[in-house]
Order: sequence, then structure tokens, then C-alpha cells
Amino acid sequence: MIKVAIMGYGTIGSGVYEVLERNQEILAETVGQGIEVKYILDLRDFEGSSVEKKIVHDFSVICQDGEIKIVVETMGGLDPAYPFVKACLEAGKHVATSNKALVAAYGTELLAIAREKKVNFMFEASVGGGIPIIRPLYRCLMGEKIEEITGILNGTTNFILTKMDKEGASFEWSLKEAQALGYAERNPEADVEGHDTCRKIAILTAMATGREVDYEEIPTEGMTGITDTDFRYADALGTSIKLVGSSRMEGNKVYAWVAPLMIDKNHPLYAVNDVYNGILVKGNMIGTTMYYGSGAGKLPTASAVVADIVEEAKHLDSNIPIGWSSQKLPIAPMSDAVYRYFVRVSGKYEDRRDMVEAVFGKAKVVELEGLDEFAFLTAELKESRFQENLDILKVELTAEYEKVLQVIRADR
Amino acid sequence: MIKVAIMGYGTIGSGVYEVLERNQEILAETVGQGIEVKYILDLRDFEGSSVEKKIVHDFSVICQDGEIKIVVETMGGLDPAYPFVKACLEAGKHVATSNKALVAAYGTELLAIAREKKVNFMFEASVGGGIPIIRPLYRCLMGEKIEEITGILNGTTNFILTKMDKEGASFEWSLKEAQALGYAERNPEADVEGHDTCRKIAILTAMATGREVDYEEIPTEGMTGITDTDFRYADALGTSIKLVGSSRMEGNKVYAWVAPLMIDKNHPLYAVNDVYNGILVKGNMIGTTMYYGSGAGKLPTASAVVADIVEEAKHLDSNIPIGWSSQKLPIAPMSDAVYRYFVRVSGKYEDRRDMVEAVFGKAKVVELEGLDEFAFLTAELKESRFQENLDILKVELTAEYEKVLQVIRADR
Repeated sequence: MIKVAIMGYGTIGSGVYEVLERNQEILAETVGQGIEVKYILDLRDFEGSSVEKKIVHDFSVICQDGEIKIVVETMGGLDPAYPFVKACLEAGKHVATSNKALVAAYGTELLAIAREKKVNFMFEASVGGGIPIIRPLYRCLMGEKIEEITGILNGTTNFILTKMDKEGASFEWSLKEAQALGYAERNPEADVEGHDTCRKIAILTAMATGREVDYEEIPTEGMTGITDTDFRYADALGTSIKLVGSSRMEGNKVYAWVAPLMIDKNHPLYAVNDVYNGILVKGNMIGTTMYYGSGAGKLPTASAVVADIVEEAKHLDSNIPIGWSSQKLPIAPMSDAVYRYFVRVSGKYEDRRDMVEAVFGKAKVVELEGLDEFAFLTAELKESRFQENLDILKVELTAEYEKVLQVIRADR
Repeated sequence: MIKVAIMGYGTIGSGVYEVLERNQEILAETVGQGIEVKYILDLRDFEGSSVEKKIVHDFSVICQDGEIKIVVETMGGLDPAYPFVKACLEAGKHVATSNKALVAAYGTELLAIAREKKVNFMFEASVGGGIPIIRPLYRCLMGEKIEEITGILNGTTNFILTKMDKEGASFEWSLKEAQALGYAERNPEADVEGHDTCRKIAILTAMATGREVDYEEIPTEGMTGITDTDFRYADALGTSIKLVGSSRMEGNKVYAWVAPLMIDKNHPLYAVNDVYNGILVKGNMIGTTMYYGSGAGKLPTASAVVADIVEEAKHLDSNIPIGWSSQKLPIAPMSDAVYRYFVRVSGKYEDRRDMVEAVFGKAKVVELEGLDEFAFLTAELKESRFQENLDILKVELTAEYEKVLQVIRADR
């Protein structure tokens, strides 16, 4: 019987307990022996519940118990998650966490300690909820050179954007709906401003390249600027708008960013709706693959944690070489990246056609009924070149008392 | 340096060689040592090519060379693939194959020999081309009870059905197009009659349940009966029609079948088009996940074989417990399965409304302009019940010199 401790008995932590209980037979068969939760660390007592006797309030009980081989960290945040996890690894215990903030901020150090102590630090649940994505990167795409990862990595914003897309709702209304359903927090900033997606694309990029990625260097733009009008244009163009995290690996550098992206209806991420996540991974031999599933939710996320527990239980005496080194991967300036761009401009297109064509050449133009504006989708061009052109357009427009209303990157 | 032999230097075999060459640095880093192809078994000589010196015509050269640790089987078919692979495993060599016919027919025996000889018999490329799907089942969804697998598993038929769907083309024209592009063989029977999909869903079902599945017991229906008219109805219903292999695990039995399925536009497989494959896997905790990518093609399929080589190279001295036992999984009769059904009937709906409602209750009805027929989509019901109702309808219709034109299962 392998003894496990769970630190943090909130949604995910109690989900892990539930998965371990409900699937215990399959798990025992897979691992070769049973898995038993010995301690649950939480501030609460859960009096009268079935876990009452397992509750401890003192972390040192877990850390000092040599019988505990695997510790699950589902507290979230950095303090005390970081010192606790570090202490567990240093005490020779395996750790499985769902905490993306912890992995993005301290992954390099924690992976190094795990290697040194011949234990494992695993974090499948930190990205994409239940979707297997960390493990495919080191278990399935072995021998592939990963060229691109683009993912819808945040279920809350995808729910909001899907509402706006399919129901023509406003951002404000959709956010309230998400909050009412428990998908969005009262303070939704981490989701809607892209901070959550930023940490996740940093983790995936580091996994794919084997090098440290500083999430604070990744240009991050949220989706609060996207309006229902943008979706009317997107629909007319046969596209949708998704908040994505994206990395393109080119030689020794990576173009990484978080922002809304206009996605064509033939793109595999187009059909990833509601709270689902989808992660596109492009390899130099395999081409495009995509992984889809519940990006959040108690049991799916818990299932991913349990997959880590199983792998650790099967490798109690060895460190599986995963993750990344302390060698840092430079984030390339976006000015060199190549995309298409969706631009909305006030005024009538017939009055601006010459100007737009002079600056951007032939672009795909859309005019919607009842709006005193128009939009165009450029050909592929370098971001620096696009910005120069846009500046020229802005100057011209200002002279005419008109202006650029919106700019969104579009997939190539 | 790990020495490898490739048996069969056709599209996939030469692709494996190419991936091993082009990504050799990444591979050496992942494995911890280099991988070198020592022999290539083929009937041809490939004179003047870079592989000329590696070519052998005699299998015993490979089988008797103790230096060869891993053998790649990319010949296809059963003879001589089966005796050769068996001999390799018995000689203590690891095998990686892309050969679904071999795995479906002899997987149970070959897996048992591999276990006994402490080597590995791996077959990631036998299903879904490049898509990681075998490995996620034993490496990522550990501890999940798999409840359903439904996959678009054949790129050729998916290409044909996509042409019919998006371009309103006929089956015959789309098949010719697929043949012209090299996606379909001159004799397309194995693809369009569903035999290829049948072997693949048998392999996936065995992987998911750990029990042997006899592919010959799986009810298999091709897609040659699907017409452009069916797609007009599908479009009106907001659906598409895909050839799928599907398994639903219920208790100690499985409902497994291959047939066209009408899929709603919100279903994750709806957007899997052209030669791409998509495989939906539903677990009891994780919910719905989906794996998407190139279902065929030289390099994607070769990449999957190489992933097997890498895993075997990292476990030269041990058998990784995967696959299934010789305990057979009974295939449940489809009569107990529950689906919705799409039915086309000749004549006018207004004349048949009472009859249809009397037999099937309220159904979703579609009438298309210019056709002397109509269609309806039933509620969920047991297949046996549906067949009884359909028989009643048929008797009534025949009396009126009208008839049932088409029946297609629809997802729930």
C-alpha cells in the first residue's frame, strides 16, 4: 500500500480523494499495489465527514512521516505551497501538483531538487485541466522537434467568448453569466487579462524546449477589449475569436505571447467551445496534432493529478527525466513575428479604399450593415511592418477625424 | 549506439529512416545514446541510394544478429510480417510496428511472447497514423475507467465524406478524386467497407479494457451507401456524416461497431475533416477528451513508429505492461444499444405524418425542396425497438408503394 498525503482539500484536492476512492481497483491493478490517503492537510476540520480522521493542520506531520511517499499539492498560490513542496522534495517525497502559479514561478528549482533527490515533481493538471498535454510532450512526441504550441488554455474566457460568439452577447453580460455558473471568480482579472494563460503557455513552452521560460517576459494581452461587434465581423469572415497562448520555436528563440486570435473555421481550435480547452502541438515530422477536453472542473483536473500519482507510484525509486533545465530560453521580440491582422476603422470604406490599399495593399474587406465603419484582414506580414503601416494609417485617419477601432491578430 | 533493423522499405519504412536521420540529435538526447539503422529488409536493392549498403534480403540476417535490439515492421499484411515479428520477439528483440492487420489478428499472442521474453511489442502507428492514441491510453489515462471510444480512424473515407459534405460531390466522384491524390487505393474496399476502421477500433477497445477483442465479431458497415442527398439533410439538421468506429464499455461487455454516424456540429469530431483523424475517449472521471492529427501520411506515421523505438530504447531490459490479456471481451448485440436514428422515406410528409408519429412519436422532420421524400430524426431509443418500429413502418409504406430510403445512426 502506497501512502499519500493531500495538501489542500478544496475543489481539486477533494476531487483527487474522490478519484482515488472511486477508481481504487483500477488504480491498484495499474500500480501493482493500492494507494491510500493517509493525511489531508487543511485549515478546516471537516468534522463528521469521512475524511475527518485524516485531517492534519501541521505540515511537519506529513513531511516527517517516512511512510508518505507521494504528496499532492492542491492548495494553489505560492505561499505556503512553494516552501511546503520544496520541503517535501528535499525530504525525498514525490510531488504531484495542479498549481500552475507554482510551476511557472519555481518549476526550474523544484525540478532540479527532484532530480537531485531521485524523486519526481509532476504537474499534468497545471495546464489544460484533465487534458493529457504535459505527458504527451515527454511520453508521446519523443523525437519530435516541437515547432509550435497554440492553445485555448483558459476555460473561463473561452466560455465568455463562446457566449459572445454564439449568442451575440456582450462581454459584460457573458462575464456575469460565467460568474453566476461558478466558472468565473468574483475578481476575474487573472482569467480575462490573460495571466492564467500566460503561466500555462510558459510551462508548455519550457516542456517543449527543455529550457526555462520566464512567464513575466511573455507579452500578455487579455480579452476585455473584444466586443460583440468584433464577433459580427468574425462571423462574416468565417472565423471566431479565441484567447490563446502561443509559442513558435524558431532556432534558438521563441515567439511567445498571449492575446485574442482570430481563427479560421477550418482551424482545429475553431470548434473548441465553452469551458473546453484545446491545445495544438505542431512537430517537425508529425505535423499538427490537437488535444481536447475539459480545461477545468473538479474530477477531470483531479484525474490528471491521479495520473501523476500513478506514474510516481510506478517509479518510486527513480527520477523520470522530464521538464527543463535552468538554461533560459530567450523570448524573441514580437516585432519579427509574422501574422495576419484584422483591423476595424471608422468611416465608410469607399472613402478610405485608396488609403487602405496604399498602406496595406489588397486586403479582405468587410462592411456590416448599419455600422459607420469597416474592417479589413491583411495578408501575412511582419508585426513591425504592420505597426509601421498602422501608424501611417492612424496619422492619415486622424487628419480626417477618424480612427482605428480595433486590431486583432489572425492565424496564418 | 542502439542498432535497429527496418523490415519493409515502403512509404512508412522509408519515413522511419528519414525521421531517425533528420531528428537524430534530439533522439540521441532523449534516449541517452544514438540510434542507428543497421539493416533494411526489402525485396528491392535500392542501388545507388544512400541505404544501399544496409539492404538485406534474408530475414535470418536480422534475426540472428545479437546486436539488433529493435526491429521495425513496416511491411504490412500478415505474411511474412507475422512469422517474422514472432521470430524477432522470440529472439529477444523489441518490435515496433505500424501494421494494424497484424496487431488486430495476432496482438494477443505477440504481446504474450513479448511479456515472456521481457521485451516490448509496440504499435502506436497502427491506429490514427501520427496521433498519439495508444500511448495516452496506457500512459496518460491511467486510473480512468474508459467508458467510450469513438473515432474517425480512416483518412481515406474521411477525405471522401468531407468532399461530399463541403462540395456536394457524389461518392463516386470523391472516390476518384481521392485515388487521383493517392489517398485511396485502386481497390478501396478495405477503406470504404470499413474493414480498416474495424481493426483499429478493435485494437483501441482491447487497449482500453485490457481484454482481447475479436475484430471479426464487430458489426461493420461501410460508407458506400451514403449519398450526396444524405448530406443535404445532414446540413439542414446542423450535422455531418462520418464513418466511425465506436465502442461503449458497459460492465463486462462492449457495444462495438463500425458504420456511418450522423454527428452534431457541437460534437468534437464534427470538425475533423479531410485526411485527418480524430479519436474521442471518454473516461469516468476525466469526461470527454479528443486526440486529433494526421491519420496517415509518411512522416506523421513514421513519427509514431519512432516514438515506439524511443520508448523501447529507454526500456531495453524490461517489458512495459501494456496491451491486453487472452481473456476475451464479449461484443454485446447491437439490439441493446441506444442511439438516435435518421430515416429517409419516399413520399410527402404531410401524407405520412400520422403514420410516422404513430410509430416513432414526435421526431424532428426535414423536407428538402425539389425532393419527393422526407426525413426524420428519432429520439433516443434501443436499436431493437427502432428495428421493430422500422419494420412496422416498412409494412405500412409498402402497402402504399413507398419505402424507406436510408437509415443512419445519430449520436445521442
